[in-house]
Amino acid sequence: MLKANLLHKFKLFDEFWTPKIIGELNDQYIKLAKLKGEFIWHEHQEEDELFYIVKGTLLLRFRDRDDIQLNEGDMCVVPAGVEHLPIAEEECWVMLVEPKTTLHTGTTKTDRSVAVEEQNWI
Amino acid sequence: MLKANLLHKFKLFDEFWTPKIIGELNDQYIKLAKLKGEFIWHEHQEEDELFYIVKGTLLLRFRDRDDIQLNEGDMCVVPAGVEHLPIAEEECWVMLVEPKTTLHTGTTKTDRSVAVEEQNWI
Repeated sequence: MLKANLLHKFKLFDEFWTPKIIGELNDQYIKLAKLKGEFIWHEHQEEDELFYIVKGTLLLRFRDRDDIQLNEGDMCVVPAGVEHLPIAEEECWVMLVEPKTTLHTGTTKTDRSVAVEEQNWI
Repeated sequence: MLKANLLHKFKLFDEFWTPKIIGELNDQYIKLAKLKGEFIWHEHQEEDELFYIVKGTLLLRFRDRDDIQLNEGDMCVVPAGVEHLPIAEEECWVMLVEPKTTLHTGTTKTDRSVAVEEQNWI
């Protein structure tokens, strides 16, 4: 059974924009990611995605609505089909919950995409 | 779109053992609950349940395995079908993620059960 301390898990890796899987529930993965800089615009057509900010600040930009700034202790659910661009001016640590089928960069395929099978468990 | 600060949301209610719904993703609810004392033994037959400790300490007892103590920043996923008993010696604040179909006290019906339609949004 999964028992994990988030801050402890975050000490186990340093890479940015490479989600690590720490657990699963109801056909979704729980992932941790360190973010720094600007990612890419993308959307997940079928999957809602939960962001929970463990450390730092994350700006989520959207095409069709106002930006959202998330600070430590904030959470946000980006609904399926909503294009978004995560930007972390400074290093930011997030927990994600999303279906196992969720692709890292959604319908956008780039050299920054990390396949689910490469999102190793920690 | 949901954006919420967990600590802020926890200031909006005082009752113990009465989950409040703050958001949803992928046919699950995100809930907050304040816990104090001992709950009841129960299981959710089809649904995995995520516990994330925002404040305090929670002991999870199991029939078929060792107890787990969860401290602030810890998370645990109780798999479907695993009977559990949450005990909070002191006040404890938790975030839960579980399918919308999840019953508060699982297959056990008691006067402490709170129907999902009474787990108001905050």
